[in-house]
This record gives sequence, C-alpha cells and structure tokens, in this order.
Amino acid sequence: MSTALTDSQLEALRNEIKEQGDEIRRLKESKADPALIKEKVAAMLAKKKLVEGDAAVKPGKFVLKCPKGTRDYGPTAMAIREQVIEIMTDTFKRHGAETIETPVFELRDVLLGKYGEEGGKLVYDLQDQGGELLSMRYDLTVPFARYLAMNKVATMKRYHIARVYRRDQPVMTRGRYREFYQCDFDIAGKYDSMIPEAECLKIMDEVLSALKLGQYVIKLNHRLMLEGMFAVIGANDSQFKSVCASVDKLDKEPWDKVEEELVKERGLTPNAAARLGTFVCFKALHPDLDNGAILDQMMQIPELAANAKFKQGVEEIKLLLTYCAAFGVSSAVEVNPSLARGLDYYTGSIYEAVIPDGLAGVKDEEVGVPVGVGSVAGGGRYDGLVGMFSPKASVPCCGVSFGIERLFALIEAKNASEQQRTTSTQVLVASAQKNLLADRMRLVSQLWSWGVKAEIVYKENPKMLNQLQYAEERAIPFVLIIGEQELKDGVVKLRNTKSRVETNVKLEDLQTSLAQMIATSN
Amino acid sequence: MSTALTDSQLEALRNEIKEQGDEIRRLKESKADPALIKEKVAAMLAKKKLVEGDAAVKPGKFVLKCPKGTRDYGPTAMAIREQVIEIMTDTFKRHGAETIETPVFELRDVLLGKYGEEGGKLVYDLQDQGGELLSMRYDLTVPFARYLAMNKVATMKRYHIARVYRRDQPVMTRGRYREFYQCDFDIAGKYDSMIPEAECLKIMDEVLSALKLGQYVIKLNHRLMLEGMFAVIGANDSQFKSVCASVDKLDKEPWDKVEEELVKERGLTPNAAARLGTFVCFKALHPDLDNGAILDQMMQIPELAANAKFKQGVEEIKLLLTYCAAFGVSSAVEVNPSLARGLDYYTGSIYEAVIPDGLAGVKDEEVGVPVGVGSVAGGGRYDGLVGMFSPKASVPCCGVSFGIERLFALIEAKNASEQQRTTSTQVLVASAQKNLLADRMRLVSQLWSWGVKAEIVYKENPKMLNQLQYAEERAIPFVLIIGEQELKDGVVKLRNTKSRVETNVKLEDLQTSLAQMIATSN
Repeated sequence: MSTALTDSQLEALRNEIKEQGDEIRRLKESKADPALIKEKVAAMLAKKKLVEGDAAVKPGKFVLKCPKGTRDYGPTAMAIREQVIEIMTDTFKRHGAETIETPVFELRDVLLGKYGEEGGKLVYDLQDQGGELLSMRYDLTVPFARYLAMNKVATMKRYHIARVYRRDQPVMTRGRYREFYQCDFDIAGKYDSMIPEAECLKIMDEVLSALKLGQYVIKLNHRLMLEGMFAVIGANDSQFKSVCASVDKLDKEPWDKVEEELVKERGLTPNAAARLGTFVCFKALHPDLDNGAILDQMMQIPELAANAKFKQGVEEIKLLLTYCAAFGVSSAVEVNPSLARGLDYYTGSIYEAVIPDGLAGVKDEEVGVPVGVGSVAGGGRYDGLVGMFSPKASVPCCGVSFGIERLFALIEAKNASEQQRTTSTQVLVASAQKNLLADRMRLVSQLWSWGVKAEIVYKENPKMLNQLQYAEERAIPFVLIIGEQELKDGVVKLRNTKSRVETNVKLEDLQTSLAQMIATSN
Repeated sequence: MSTALTDSQLEALRNEIKEQGDEIRRLKESKADPALIKEKVAAMLAKKKLVEGDAAVKPGKFVLKCPKGTRDYGPTAMAIREQVIEIMTDTFKRHGAETIETPVFELRDVLLGKYGEEGGKLVYDLQDQGGELLSMRYDLTVPFARYLAMNKVATMKRYHIARVYRRDQPVMTRGRYREFYQCDFDIAGKYDSMIPEAECLKIMDEVLSALKLGQYVIKLNHRLMLEGMFAVIGANDSQFKSVCASVDKLDKEPWDKVEEELVKERGLTPNAAARLGTFVCFKALHPDLDNGAILDQMMQIPELAANAKFKQGVEEIKLLLTYCAAFGVSSAVEVNPSLARGLDYYTGSIYEAVIPDGLAGVKDEEVGVPVGVGSVAGGGRYDGLVGMFSPKASVPCCGVSFGIERLFALIEAKNASEQQRTTSTQVLVASAQKNLLADRMRLVSQLWSWGVKAEIVYKENPKMLNQLQYAEERAIPFVLIIGEQELKDGVVKLRNTKSRVETNVKLEDLQTSLAQMIATSN
C-alpha cells in the first residue's frame, strides 16, 4: 500500500524520472552497455510506479505550478518591470520610434533554419490540431524581418518589448527562463553608412545611463574585421563560426584557455592560434590606446592592412566613431577586436554593453547572475535577414536588444533595501465611526474625479486602526478621515501616514490642499 | 504539367482542402452515405495534388503570412491600442490596483474542465516535446485563480492586460481572432457584500466615459434571480445553462424567437416559456420603471417573492444600487432580468455594458462589427473558481473584463478621419547645406538631453525638401534648420510645419523657446 506523498515529494520524483529518462536516451544514443540501460530503466519504472500509485490515492490531484522554466510576475516584479520598461520606451519614443506587435506564434516555416542547428532544437512547437503547423517565437528579430517582408515595408524605426520562448534547460536561480522578455530597437532601411548604428549606440548609452547601474562599456567590433583576421591566420570559412564561439569567451576566460580550445577543438595550428591572439587581444595587450589608435596600430600590421575585408571594417568603424563623437557617446564606446557575439546573422558592425565592475554594493547571489560579467545589451547590423523571406525586397537592418530580464534583476537587487510599492495610491479615505460607508464612497468618488489615486477598504464598518494599518502597510502617504461631526462642520481630517500629523481641511479647499500635499510628498 | 499557382490561389486551395477535410470528418461522424464520403474524399485529394504539385514546382516556397486567425499590430493599430490601454491602466491605478503577468501557457491540467465542453475544444495545445503537457491560456481569469491558489494570496485587486488564445473559427473581418487582447480587473478577497462589485461598476463607468464613445448602459442582474425565476416556472437544474443561453440572445433577437427556441430546443412547456417571458422581459415591458421599481414590482409577484434565491438576489442588487448611488453611477446602471451572460462560473451579480445606439457617425462596416449591439465590457461574481485549485483556501472574487479588441475597433473608426500619428516626435533637426551631419547630430543630442523627442534623417547630405517632406508626412510639428551662416551667428531657424512660419532663435534661448512652442502646440 502506498502512503500519500506530499506535493514536493511528488514533484521531486517526477523530476528524477525526467532526468533518468533523459539519461537513458543518451545511453541508448551512445550505444551503451544494454545491461546498464536495463538497470536504469528498471529504476525509473519503480519511481514511475510510486508516482502513479500516488495518483491513484489522490485522484485528480495535480501539482499546482507554472510550466517548467516559466514564472509568474507578481506585483513587486511587475512594478520594477514597469519602471525599466518606461525608461526604455521613453528613450525609444524620444528617438522617434514606432512600436509593433506580432503573433506569439508563427508558421513553423517562418522560423525554420533561422537559428542554426542548436537554436532550432529549442523552438516550442504547437500541437498539430488540424490546420497550420505553428511554433512559438524564439526572438523578436525574425518576426520583425517577416513583418517587413510580408508588408513590403522598406523603412522603419521600431521597438518591440515582448516575451519569447526557448525550450532550453532553465536555470531559474540564475535568471535563465524558458519564457522571458526581450526588448528590441531596430532601424530598417537603406541609409547612409553607420548613421543608424550610431543612433543604436546612442540609445544604448541613454538607456544604461538612465538606469543608473554605474559604469558600463559598449564594446564595438566588425564582422569584416574578424573575417579579415581569420583570413590572415589562414583559417578557412568553415571554421569561422566555431572560432568566433571560442573567441567570444574572452570576456570570461583567459587567452591561454581560449588558445588551447582553438588548437585542440577548432583545428587551428598552434602558430595560427598564437597569431590570432595578437589580433583579438589587441585591446587587452594595449589597454592605454584609445579607439582610433587601436585601429591605426592594427592597420600597421601589413597582412591586416592588405586584407580588403579588414580594411573596410576598420573604415566603417572609424566613420562610426566620428558619429559617436558627435552624439557624445565616445567615452562609453571601446573598440575591441575580441568581441565576436553570435555572428549567425550579423553582417557588419557588432556591439555589446557590459557592466565590468559589477553593481556597487550588490553581490552576485542577490542578482542570481555574476553582476560583473555578461552583457546587458547587444546588437549589430544584419543586412541579409529580410531577404531570406523576400529575396526581391531585401531590407538592410541594424538594431540593439536589451537583456531586459538581467536588467530587471539588477534593478531589483539595487532596490532591495527600499520598500517597493506595487500601487501608486495617494489617499485612503477612512471613517472614524460606523455607518459612514456611503460617505466614504461619495468622498472617494470625488477624489477619483479629480484624478487622485484613492481607495477605501471594502468593509461596511471598518475599525479606524485597521484602516490606518492598511495605509501604513501599503505606504499610502495620506489618509482622509471623515466623522459625523466633521461632516456636519464641512471638514475632513488629513493625516500624513509617515509623520502621523493630522490637520483639518475644509471640504471646499480639499482639492487644492490635496494637490499641494501630493506634489510635495513625491 | 502544372503551372505555378499564385500565393493567393494556393492559400484559397489550402483553405478549401481544410474545409472539405472538416466536412468529411463530420460526415463520417454522422455515419453518412459511404458513397458520398468517397466522392468528397476524391475531390479533396485532387485539390491536394494541385497544391503538392505546385510545391514541387517552387521548392521551399511558402506563403508569407500570419498564422490563421492572428494579425500583426502595425504602428497605427499600436498607437490606438496604447491610447485605450493608457485610459484603462490610469483608471485601474487610480483605484489602487496592482498588476501581474502569468505565463502564456499553463499546465494542461490547470485549464482542464474550466471552460465547459465547447470551450475545452478551443484550447491550443503545445506539442509534447518531452516533459509537461502545456496549453495556451484561454482567458486571464483561470490563470488569475491559479495564481491566487498557488501563492496562497487571500486578497488582491489586480488588473491584467494580455493576449489569450482560442482555436475558434476566426471571422477577421468582424474582429473575431484566435489571438486577442483581454483586459481584466478583478477584486479577490472576503469583503462586505457588494462593495467590490460597486467598484467594478464604477470602473466600467469611468473607463467608458473616458473613452468618449457616447451613451452606454450597464445592465445588471443576479444569478440567484435567474435561478429563482427558472424554479418558479418549473425548469429543472439541468436546463439552467441552456435556458440561460437562449435568454441571453434577447439583446439581439425578439422574445418570440427566443420563446420558440425555449419550447422547441430547450424543452420548456409553452406555458412555462410564456411565464418566463413575463419575468425576463420585465424591463422591456415596463421601460419607464426605474431600477428600484423593477425589483419592487417583481417582488409583488407572489411566487417570485416566495422563492428564497430570488429574494436574496433582489436584496443584494438593492444593496449594490445604494452603493452605485454613492459612487455616482446610478444613471448608467439598468437592472435588467434578461441579462444571462455566460453563467458557467458566475455565482452572484452579473453585469454587462452595451452601447445601445451605436457610435454617432460610425457605420457598422467601418468597425467590422455592428456597433449598436454586443457588449463592450462584462463581469460578475465568481466565488467558486479559486476553490477548484485549492479547496481549503477558496477565495471569493468579482471582476470585469473589457472587450478591448472591440474598443480598439470603435476608437479606430471614430478617429478614422484624423491622421493617426504613430510616433510622438516633436522636432526634426535638418540642415540647409551639405557637410552638416555632425552638426545635426550634436544638436539632436542636445535636444534628447533636454527630453525633447527629436529625429534626424539618416543621410549624410539630405536635400532640404526631403527633410521638410519627412516632417510633413509624419506630422512632426517643428523643424530646426541649421546652416553654416546660422552656426556662425549662434542661431537656428525654427520652422512650424503646419503654418510654415520660420523664426530665428538664439542657441542659448533654444531650450526655453522649444519648451514654450511644444507646450502651446499640444
């Protein structure tokens, strides 16, 4: 006879079964010893029986939870999310951007082949219930390209803040979810070289400075510069992606380790790898050179200077730097030839913002991610994506995507010591005696009509103490108290929740008095 | 040999195949003549061949479209959506509401059995890719109840604006989509009777009046009053839902038709149906009676007065009416015993807002829906839903859901004659001569730092005319023009796009001048 398991025991069992199932599949794939597989299967089946036995004990019982890798955003998380999103949308709107929304799922064919082999495996599919085959969006960039191609839009400056879906292994304690927000700003259209990129960098700078997260650096590189360096050391085109993936680790790992990987796993010769190191570590090796000098000195290397791609990349970045100067963002921008972020669809400049020193006073474990590494925003130019949908009407694009979940976590950690209000109620209308519900209702209606954010408690005859407590718990700055005598005299008592000072206000002066008190309390 | 079909021909064919497939399934289910089925199958297969033949002609070619029943929201639609949503969130926040977000999909078990037989069929399932079985959310109410139960939240006033998913037959020309926004406000918690309901009605009133859609009526009824009426005419409990569904049609159909349906399809006797008519049409039969009088006169009918449920319903509605008076919403509220909206989970008061006369000057076809019928908001009390997830911690709730897609359509139609701006850019920074890009960049940066919404065109040397046209097309109210002479003199030219008046402004006065001009232009 099985005894009923607790919900958490059940969930733990289910997770174990899932993990064992995965392990068995891996063993089968790697053609492991059949005896071992048999043993693992038996162990898993025993656990399954336990769970099913328990289901029989509690029919219809299931664990109340969010789907794996997803979460609810409660009022506190939403309040922080709204602050961050407001800063971003204000910035985008200040730059004249429009916004669009696309369906949360797309025809499967739209997403097919856009995210490489690895990404493709992480796409959520919808069940075939008759009709079209659909998949959940994996990012906001491919739907944007589909939108441009489908609606034959040739120019657009748009932002899009929405959730995307990846069936990745979630690490919720480190902020890695299967459903998470992305915040993208993109400029589509045939324009003069590097002007749209400059505005993307300006926007990164404005958003990060408005978020007050301390020092940040916007690293800048160019795909053509990377291609040039790789050509000079004799790497072939088929190695491009894998070499980039190794080089991209340089913000977390020392060169020695990356070099080893390049030789052992990526197939570079020791000489080629060493040579590449002198290129991609150029900034690290010459930390005192400014952006222009980095480019100039790299161009002093004859093989790089002789490579047409490298040269074009350098010229474009130099132009971009002059625009950065005009936009006043030069001090945040750092040309760094080691930046090699996900180059699958980038065709030109690439950039990434990092907070190198971490957040003052915030420890890694409070954010769930190491605060000193990893990017908080990144992007680049991708001129080929729209053409994948509509070869005749290709639209060049560049853009930036903010790591908004990480930004939420950073702001959350930064504000951890403060009380985070989840409402913006300014006034609680309360009564000191019984039978004044209708009077509270009339007064609160009056306040609403003036645009004042106000509440009453939903009780016919609430106790005074409970009402004051309600205001204190929710940090409602003012309480308006009515009583029979006050109503007769045409006055109300206005109480400051923090100072507990109470003053009588004539009803005819109430609107003005409230407006003043609220203005000074903010 | 097949010739290539156009995309629209292909789509039409695919739709026909889909419809024929559905028909064949229906025929099979109803055990129709096998010869007929065979004929239909042959016709469908012939069409399939055409489509597949075409796919062979254009390998890899697919129709670029949104999934069936979904749409993109372009910049214009989004601008209107933002206006409507801002009015709503302002109202909810004025009333002290918090907001939450839940995952777009839930464990399938969470949704199971919550939407009746019909609703259950319309739920989108995700493919089983290993792991949990998931379904897309069908509304925001069940996820809210799951949230309350899972997090053991006993009181909450929250709003939630997000999209939901129903695999319904879409009628996009009439605004019926498979993916659409819902906007819900709910009050959860054990409170004194009818106070939360009164705030829901107040919020409906404030939102609808702020949207300026003209006259609206908030119909009010009570589930217990309906149950009482049905008991008095001798209908049994099993008939409750189906009789309600017929009665609910009274806002679109005359009583005669509803009566016929009640007798022929719902199994009421002609006498019972006729008697029910005198109850549910009480408001229609006595249009001049006010809300209190309707209730009083119905209570004059001995059988109704003797029914405990009916009596309790009347008493609760009377209490609610006194609160409506205190909140100043009486004139919009109409007690109407014919209101019988989707009663599956409602347990107490129910309400629904309609715009009876349609929108002044707006024709049905402009909105895609008949503007004079159908509800734009509705809700009621549902005390049992949270308990379905957590029997020990049941939380009574009431709320209101706004038909926000219909409201978008109404506002869209109302504003159809005006130019709908999709950005809020206030100033375009332009240059009259060549080689002034860096100057434009410096000036526009200055404007951004002042919080002014401003743009430049992304060209090194744009023509003056093109820049002015850019401002006119986008209704950007001001253009700041710089030239070499102006820069030397420390002035810029400020041009009003509408009046075309140009004035010189000193650079040191620019911030103040711009602030004044922008303030007066709004």
